[in-house]
Amino acid sequence: MTIRVAIAGARGKMGSEAVKTVCKHDGMVLVAALDYKHVGESLSQLEMFPPNLDVPIYTNLTQLITETTPDVLIDLTNPHSVYEHTKEAMLHNVRTVVGTTGFTDEQLEELSILARDKKCGCIIAPNFAIGAILMMKFAKEAAKYLPNVEIIELHHDRKLDAPSGTGKKTAQLISEVREAKKQGHPNEIETMMGARGADFEGMRIHSVRLPGLVAHQEVIFGGEGQMLTIRHDSFNRESFMSGVVFCVETVMTMEELVYGLENIL
Amino acid sequence: MTIRVAIAGARGKMGSEAVKTVCKHDGMVLVAALDYKHVGESLSQLEMFPPNLDVPIYTNLTQLITETTPDVLIDLTNPHSVYEHTKEAMLHNVRTVVGTTGFTDEQLEELSILARDKKCGCIIAPNFAIGAILMMKFAKEAAKYLPNVEIIELHHDRKLDAPSGTGKKTAQLISEVREAKKQGHPNEIETMMGARGADFEGMRIHSVRLPGLVAHQEVIFGGEGQMLTIRHDSFNRESFMSGVVFCVETVMTMEELVYGLENIL
Amino acid sequence: MTIRVAIAGARGKMGSEAVKTVCKHDGMVLVAALDYKHVGESLSQLEMFPPNLDVPIYTNLTQLITETTPDVLIDLTNPHSVYEHTKEAMLHNVRTVVGTTGFTDEQLEELSILARDKKCGCIIAPNFAIGAILMMKFAKEAAKYLPNVEIIELHHDRKLDAPSGTGKKTAQLISEVREAKKQGHPNEIETMMGARGADFEGMRIHSVRLPGLVAHQEVIFGGEGQMLTIRHDSFNRESFMSGVVFCVETVMTMEELVYGLENIL
Amino acid sequence: MTIRVAIAGARGKMGSEAVKTVCKHDGMVLVAALDYKHVGESLSQLEMFPPNLDVPIYTNLTQLITETTPDVLIDLTNPHSVYEHTKEAMLHNVRTVVGTTGFTDEQLEELSILARDKKCGCIIAPNFAIGAILMMKFAKEAAKYLPNVEIIELHHDRKLDAPSGTGKKTAQLISEVREAKKQGHPNEIETMMGARGADFEGMRIHSVRLPGLVAHQEVIFGGEGQMLTIRHDSFNRESFMSGVVFCVETVMTMEELVYGLENIL
Repeated sequence: MTIRVAIAGARGKMGSEAVKTVCKHDGMVLVAALDYKHVGESLSQLEMFPPNLDVPIYTNLTQLITETTPDVLIDLTNPHSVYEHTKEAMLHNVRTVVGTTGFTDEQLEELSILARDKKCGCIIAPNFAIGAILMMKFAKEAAKYLPNVEIIELHHDRKLDAPSGTGKKTAQLISEVREAKKQGHPNEIETMMGARGADFEGMRIHSVRLPGLVAHQEVIFGGEGQMLTIRHDSFNRESFMSGVVFCVETVMTMEELVYGLENIL
Repeated sequence: MTIRVAIAGARGKMGSEAVKTVCKHDGMVLVAALDYKHVGESLSQLEMFPPNLDVPIYTNLTQLITETTPDVLIDLTNPHSVYEHTKEAMLHNVRTVVGTTGFTDEQLEELSILARDKKCGCIIAPNFAIGAILMMKFAKEAAKYLPNVEIIELHHDRKLDAPSGTGKKTAQLISEVREAKKQGHPNEIETMMGARGADFEGMRIHSVRLPGLVAHQEVIFGGEGQMLTIRHDSFNRESFMSGVVFCVETVMTMEELVYGLENIL
Repeated sequence: MTIRVAIAGARGKMGSEAVKTVCKHDGMVLVAALDYKHVGESLSQLEMFPPNLDVPIYTNLTQLITETTPDVLIDLTNPHSVYEHTKEAMLHNVRTVVGTTGFTDEQLEELSILARDKKCGCIIAPNFAIGAILMMKFAKEAAKYLPNVEIIELHHDRKLDAPSGTGKKTAQLISEVREAKKQGHPNEIETMMGARGADFEGMRIHSVRLPGLVAHQEVIFGGEGQMLTIRHDSFNRESFMSGVVFCVETVMTMEELVYGLENIL
Repeated sequence: MTIRVAIAGARGKMGSEAVKTVCKHDGMVLVAALDYKHVGESLSQLEMFPPNLDVPIYTNLTQLITETTPDVLIDLTNPHSVYEHTKEAMLHNVRTVVGTTGFTDEQLEELSILARDKKCGCIIAPNFAIGAILMMKFAKEAAKYLPNVEIIELHHDRKLDAPSGTGKKTAQLISEVREAKKQGHPNEIETMMGARGADFEGMRIHSVRLPGLVAHQEVIFGGEGQMLTIRHDSFNRESFMSGVVFCVETVMTMEELVYGLENIL
């Protein structure tokens, strides 16, 4: 069976990658785009897409669904519109794969109930990079047996904040299975301030920022006579696309809402 | 509660490490050693142990159990004796942690039934290094989502065979969840024979041998725009000891036989 | 002083990156492009460049030099034209930075003599990635003291040949300072063919091919109780551009021809 | 030619390793030990050495030299005695390899002049690990071309101070060729204090402390589209021994004093 896909946000960075990914995937067909601009046109008329990409653009989701009958809506727009899109799609029994955050707890609760009522799968994924999700999942599991752990995350030097979101998320996940405890020598001394990194319940997080790098993270566990390292390197935006494909395929078999890829891997 | 431990094979490389480990562990006490030599003596009389290690040596397991009432027998002897020890210990309701391989299928079956009947935990672990077991477990799980994988194992140059047992075991575990498929360019050419490594159902295994190294392995997964690496470094024999401790603690809560640490992690 | 630069091959992959690099560099100005097409036009008229890039295109190098007086010609065209360009530029006292291979020994000899006669610097660089050149240079130096070495090169799976050119080049450079010798256990056994990699005078080369990867290489040295690793990761074509900048700046101070960046680093 | 070696400090940790190393080296013979205890005895009478190690122990260096005519004295004692030993050895034309620090500038100056006068080689090496020295040397050279650099050093968790001596030494060496400059985003924000590590003239140093680790360091350089990594792993004390052998062999060809292995590699 070929999965009929519609994409909201096709002109964005992630969205245009998703268009390419769906188009070249054997088991999927792109049937429509949802946009607030270019209505009535076709993706082929937009400079950024190849001239043979004959996919109609809608601004009204109900009309899109009625006329093109998608199985799944991939929504890569912004938090403002994504709640309305998701709700409306599910009311029409169209499954959704959502790549933005920014839902309120009330909205998540409402969508979750709706998904169960309609038996309509919905995946909301703040991070589509399967490798990064696996790294976090494995790190959490390893920490049960090897509770001494440090995190090194490395990014390009245009990144403003340190540590990275993934670095903090990893530490937080680990803290769910590891009691807070000070690591290192009980009397350790920093002869240069900051050498031992940031402290998250005793775990240390180190942020490297260098030109040329992309997005990398290493989680290092030490135990008697051994070291276990889990590392993820993200080289470009394509790393999200295998996650998008995985979600589209998986959501077809689901009858409820799941938040976070880690809960279906 | 302090766990009362007896050790068979205390004079061996692994065994003498286990003696040290149990002695310095707060929650355990070493109550006896099983040996075919030095019967009636104490470990303190053996040169390899400190003079205050007052632990009696027995050659008869039934007598050892009756007189010293251990909760757990750690057996680090050879395949010859380990089957008899394990069976006898369980008949006396003493749990066992076994660090050798070499059981026949019939013996495993028999011990397994006995363990269930007696509700007496037994762990048989060919490899006690928790980090290595986690590496293999994670590799198997990652391969479900990122099926393109290569293994690099690195050892000292006194190692005779390539690839290593752990390298092959990892590939075999991955093959349980990954369909065989050729990796690399369909028409790839080795301009120097062997460059692409050993072929295990399309996965490639590379063996590095250098003086100074100990025992290391990296499992590398490639996906669109990303790379996931799981690495284990073993620096010395102590890496097995946290696994022994984990097994002794875990077997106290078990009522059956488990083969392989990966099944209780 | 601002260096006046002309580029041959501006429409190619490397060339268009070089245009961008020169334009955004404070100490350089792009004065002309050499091409066999679009003569009389300006780069701004080509779709691939921004509309404000007002740089004239010539097909005749002498005319280009007379009218735009460049200090340096960067030549990123093909082996066919590059010899003629280089010779003509030097005859007009224009320094050259050349990014192609394919010269005959006679041509190199002739250009080398010409450069010395005219005291006109010329750099011919088969590889502009400074990091990769440094890796090779360091590997060669390390091998003098730690002669046990293996090379692991990792590339995307669209690469046809194994090992990579850089992998072989590294081994060849090391072999200049290291006597051929068999590494590993004298009686080592491959239980799976190819596990120990390709053999280059006893050094082993391993080629990993996985989707998502770009171009990476690790040179690992083992010695008593230690391991030294030199690794280069190339994430995209920009990695060549800092080498181009370095060459343009360096060639301004040179009065002869140098082949290979390793000889000026 | 077999090099005749005497060792001062043979009963220490480094010294006893050196005894083993010299004894098993084909090109060297151990002719005497210098000690303040056990005078008149032989190393074979000390429990820590094998019973066939028939090497006489002296407390008077002049007597040692006269009676056993060593070519080289390896001095692994403490700063107190090492200055006197070195001076006396050189006065008798015995070359020295010294593994302690703690000389005053005046002493170094005096020994340096003496070495030149007597044409008697002398190597003073605060660190004998050739791999670590090469790492620092390469890092210094790479920083000339890739000035954006961070240092990650990883040690066992019994280490009291952070960063490590080698980490600071590496940064200091790099600073000799790299102008101080702030790295990372100009407005970067630490949302958790210490994440960006210690600051050494804009370079960042990160210290990881975990049980099981030994002594490891990574120097990472970032440039456009690329990353260069130089890593040293020290697994045990043997890593110093190849440096000792190298020094003994090299000092035989030298006619002056050199401070630091990096100056003869």
